[in-house]
Amino acid sequence: MIIVMASCKQEDIDYVVSRIEALGYKGHVLKGVERTVIAAIGDERGKFRLQSLESLPHVEKVVPILKPFKLAGRELRSEPTVIQVGSAQIGGERLCVIAGPCSVESREQMLETARCVKEAGASALRGGAFKPRTSPYSFQGLEEEGLQLLQEAAQRYDMPFVTEVMTPEQVPLVERYADILQVGARNMQNFSLLKAAGKARKPVFLKRGMMSTINELLMSAEYILAEGNAQVILCERGIRTFETETRNTLDLSAVPVLKQLTHLPVVVDPSHSTGHWGLVNPMAKAAVVAGADGLMIEVHPRPSEAFSDGPQSLTPVHFHQLMDEIRRLLEIVGKTL
Amino acid sequence: MIIVMASCKQEDIDYVVSRIEALGYKGHVLKGVERTVIAAIGDERGKFRLQSLESLPHVEKVVPILKPFKLAGRELRSEPTVIQVGSAQIGGERLCVIAGPCSVESREQMLETARCVKEAGASALRGGAFKPRTSPYSFQGLEEEGLQLLQEAAQRYDMPFVTEVMTPEQVPLVERYADILQVGARNMQNFSLLKAAGKARKPVFLKRGMMSTINELLMSAEYILAEGNAQVILCERGIRTFETETRNTLDLSAVPVLKQLTHLPVVVDPSHSTGHWGLVNPMAKAAVVAGADGLMIEVHPRPSEAFSDGPQSLTPVHFHQLMDEIRRLLEIVGKTL
Amino acid sequence: MIIVMASCKQEDIDYVVSRIEALGYKGHVLKGVERTVIAAIGDERGKFRLQSLESLPHVEKVVPILKPFKLAGRELRSEPTVIQVGSAQIGGERLCVIAGPCSVESREQMLETARCVKEAGASALRGGAFKPRTSPYSFQGLEEEGLQLLQEAAQRYDMPFVTEVMTPEQVPLVERYADILQVGARNMQNFSLLKAAGKARKPVFLKRGMMSTINELLMSAEYILAEGNAQVILCERGIRTFETETRNTLDLSAVPVLKQLTHLPVVVDPSHSTGHWGLVNPMAKAAVVAGADGLMIEVHPRPSEAFSDGPQSLTPVHFHQLMDEIRRLLEIVGKTL
Amino acid sequence: MIIVMASCKQEDIDYVVSRIEALGYKGHVLKGVERTVIAAIGDERGKFRLQSLESLPHVEKVVPILKPFKLAGRELRSEPTVIQVGSAQIGGERLCVIAGPCSVESREQMLETARCVKEAGASALRGGAFKPRTSPYSFQGLEEEGLQLLQEAAQRYDMPFVTEVMTPEQVPLVERYADILQVGARNMQNFSLLKAAGKARKPVFLKRGMMSTINELLMSAEYILAEGNAQVILCERGIRTFETETRNTLDLSAVPVLKQLTHLPVVVDPSHSTGHWGLVNPMAKAAVVAGADGLMIEVHPRPSEAFSDGPQSLTPVHFHQLMDEIRRLLEIVGKTL
Repeated sequence: MIIVMASCKQEDIDYVVSRIEALGYKGHVLKGVERTVIAAIGDERGKFRLQSLESLPHVEKVVPILKPFKLAGRELRSEPTVIQVGSAQIGGERLCVIAGPCSVESREQMLETARCVKEAGASALRGGAFKPRTSPYSFQGLEEEGLQLLQEAAQRYDMPFVTEVMTPEQVPLVERYADILQVGARNMQNFSLLKAAGKARKPVFLKRGMMSTINELLMSAEYILAEGNAQVILCERGIRTFETETRNTLDLSAVPVLKQLTHLPVVVDPSHSTGHWGLVNPMAKAAVVAGADGLMIEVHPRPSEAFSDGPQSLTPVHFHQLMDEIRRLLEIVGKTL
Repeated sequence: MIIVMASCKQEDIDYVVSRIEALGYKGHVLKGVERTVIAAIGDERGKFRLQSLESLPHVEKVVPILKPFKLAGRELRSEPTVIQVGSAQIGGERLCVIAGPCSVESREQMLETARCVKEAGASALRGGAFKPRTSPYSFQGLEEEGLQLLQEAAQRYDMPFVTEVMTPEQVPLVERYADILQVGARNMQNFSLLKAAGKARKPVFLKRGMMSTINELLMSAEYILAEGNAQVILCERGIRTFETETRNTLDLSAVPVLKQLTHLPVVVDPSHSTGHWGLVNPMAKAAVVAGADGLMIEVHPRPSEAFSDGPQSLTPVHFHQLMDEIRRLLEIVGKTL
Repeated sequence: MIIVMASCKQEDIDYVVSRIEALGYKGHVLKGVERTVIAAIGDERGKFRLQSLESLPHVEKVVPILKPFKLAGRELRSEPTVIQVGSAQIGGERLCVIAGPCSVESREQMLETARCVKEAGASALRGGAFKPRTSPYSFQGLEEEGLQLLQEAAQRYDMPFVTEVMTPEQVPLVERYADILQVGARNMQNFSLLKAAGKARKPVFLKRGMMSTINELLMSAEYILAEGNAQVILCERGIRTFETETRNTLDLSAVPVLKQLTHLPVVVDPSHSTGHWGLVNPMAKAAVVAGADGLMIEVHPRPSEAFSDGPQSLTPVHFHQLMDEIRRLLEIVGKTL
Repeated sequence: MIIVMASCKQEDIDYVVSRIEALGYKGHVLKGVERTVIAAIGDERGKFRLQSLESLPHVEKVVPILKPFKLAGRELRSEPTVIQVGSAQIGGERLCVIAGPCSVESREQMLETARCVKEAGASALRGGAFKPRTSPYSFQGLEEEGLQLLQEAAQRYDMPFVTEVMTPEQVPLVERYADILQVGARNMQNFSLLKAAGKARKPVFLKRGMMSTINELLMSAEYILAEGNAQVILCERGIRTFETETRNTLDLSAVPVLKQLTHLPVVVDPSHSTGHWGLVNPMAKAAVVAGADGLMIEVHPRPSEAFSDGPQSLTPVHFHQLMDEIRRLLEIVGKTL
């Protein structure tokens, strides 16, 4: 950590050094032409207390040097994490396509969707049983019944399924049914839920919050990893910006950035990020080429009748067409479905 | 709701009208010079399904007309909500100043802080026992012991206290000690927590998410109100923008906007929004003049030793000075502490 | 345009209708269950004055229905615009790759770069002679000498070149040398410059401002088109968001959005948007797959010695490799270089 | 400047040091537990070339230490700049209120507005003769005739006036009439215009771009100062964020931040930032309390008939009332009109 001093006396510098050393670091003073900086050298544990030195007189700013995550980083583990769930694989030389409706609405809807997406080549099923909705008056999901319908559809078509868990106490219930537990974007910094997910035995699908930096996404993954669950899948699903033509702004550059910073697999959700089905096809293909390990795509048999997220759902026909186009790209990218 | 059609045939328009009417609305077609728009007239329940019509062919966009919140809005209740908690009042003709440290660290720290802020004129105490921290390696709070220390300090100096609750299942525990339950910015769309807080018997202090719109803040309040808890306090604490000179960007205009839209009291937190103690004084005073019903301010006896948020904490001396300046402003604003 | 009324009396509605009609529109009143809306039907000229009705009593909001651009839109011209400049083509079935250094630094640098990028398959050369720099102390460009060096290099390797023009009065000078005039991101709403570029006889390469919406980009294109210059090329180069891992956030979804809204060709600049050379390769390829008509890529023989933008420049070797990968993608996309 | 190395060999470090020294700096290597950092010590000229070292192998990041502005900063000049223009003063112990319409529309409108704002206590007049408008079809201003009308109204009521200049070549014309030259938000990084304004003999009113950082605003001021014009007034007028309830988000914290960083006076524009006249009153008062040296407020005799910005303009009655409230606040703040 680097502490930049405003112009001040030697005794002010000495005082900051004494405080650094009281916290167990070695302070190294570097006098420049216009500024003095002090490097705090030592193990990073407790560095968060160093940040409070910013309130000392004459300290202009405190600049951290190390990335704050460890287990999620490339330094402790350079080879990529590959997660195997039933017949699906996330990470490595395969592209995992997770498809299905936003909400589980009925048995017929789930079976029909599962059949379609399986035929088209999807590797896993998605569907929401517990729905985080901005309005209390919106459809809140079928809850446990939804989990049962998901399980039935997934088993019939031999795919694992991903579904969202919203509270720590729901984890055991959802884990009983689901193959992969999703932590949604609005819960990315629900730290109690992250800890509970970290104790689960199932892989965790962690969506980036629409307000969260890449660094914060990795810190949230770190919560799960630190509890002992090594199977974390990261998902870029759009961030909030000033642009309103799309629902959110898909930060596709986050894919290669994450690939540099972490060994965890990275999935892209072009449905939530764009909010319009007509944009899903080009952004899904762009994600594959940018290096994503997987895609999460909303598919609904009749989007205009969907209980939620109709405008961004693909019909089975459009999904089929997208999968055909992806297959051709995969030959170049050097992956398979 | 207004449905804007792209250029299309009469039969396409008829089809959309038939779909609107199948959902129980009356469709009214308005032909303009370049566009046809269809108004869907009727009760708003189920409007969320109308949104899915956006995926029909030739529908350019679906524009909602009504605000999505009801209980939080001014239309059903025009007089302002005033919340009385022990000796403190939030809303109405008094300004409520809630002060204390970011984290509860020790008994001495809490008693010393409580004494100072009480002497300076604060109406309520704050302090975190369960801490939502970006890093799993940061201090996570003293938990129940923290609640006990808060309670002791608050009772000794006859102030109610506010503290954060992080999960639905923590609500009963925190409610047993605290006078006001805080839902933090990162949990503003933790809908399970909102529902649990809506069932509590204590007022709820709801912080705006750092990337949440004013509209979403009111929708989150609506979750609490819809569960029967009418005592909701809204808190503006800064939003995330591209500017990095401050920790977040205090959206002070949100105060008069909220005053127009809702009857709920509005508090401003100049500590978290700015992130630097030197900015707390001017922004606290600006908030008072902009019409805030209260302030939440971090105060620590020795900021440079704080376990968290040291850089943004006021010393007791600076807090005292701020309160003196606020008292003079209140004469003009027409309020009292 | 739709005018939404707050709850009010019939006479308030009548007054707004009278004002609408005084401006030459037909007012159509639609009474809903909770709100009355008034549609202003008529030709759109003067609509900007309708917006001021928002300040009338009881008017809640004024919602425009039509897109504000005309010449740039798909409605007046559905077939895509294809721009031919010397041997290069922008739009249509070819992918135009524009490559070169950020700044023109010397004759050797320009000749060396031009040779490399030509060999690798670039269609056009880029280079800055007038440099818009945040700091007055940064290198400001070689000015006219830079234009001469660009011209020499471009002619020797038979490529057209693009270079930035910063003021209306520079337009004639730059037009004398350059094949395509660039209006930079910081000047996207420099309306005097847009008008001057609209009077030029050379195509205009219009970069999206880092703070500008897609709609505003099209309105700036409209300025150029309205002056009679039909050859406008749009360029997405990243928008400013809260994320700091990349220099800006590449809004790649803007490509398919623009393709829906406009007939103008769309180019992507992965260098400025990401700010790191290591991200240029994946994002360039993603842009091709997302439907971009071209790429603008910074290439420098020795990036670590560049006068500007070194960190985001590709070496000739890396550029060559990228072009090889793009060639393979183009077979699938159905385009050629 | 601090250069953070990824884990690498001694020879990689030596190479970076050699490159630093080739640029004329002294390199100081600091080995930490997990990272090596290299400090580049020396005069800051040319630092922009240091940034390109980021493209060297094994360099993780380059962290600047010094603020990039000099003339605008507090270090070279600690006492505040006070600008006297006719009867008005900007900076120091007076609050300067600049009021008037968005656009100059007619002689009657200007004379009526000037009389009203003068009576209410305004110190200066504003009005746009050259209008930067998003759409080419919007009213573009009365140009030189507008300048004449402004001058007549300003002289009759003995106030200086501020008006926008949009291109370098307009500077002599506008300077002939106006007392203060405004550089608008969309031109904040129009560096050619900044240089031309820096050569003018009139004070420059520099508006912060809606997506510009505080640091960039100061760098743009630096352009003007570096040309020899010491009379620069900074104006916060709202930044672009995701929030849509207000036209922009007024970043009021920028006022105390700027007061810490620069000696230049700081004015707040609550009209453009909020976009709604009902929010102008509270935010204007908040700005005064937060330490602003002045206010720029849009006033129009009949806002619903304004050619531009009607929704955010105050009527003369509302402006009068605001000025009365401001007078009472000034007693506490210790300033006068």
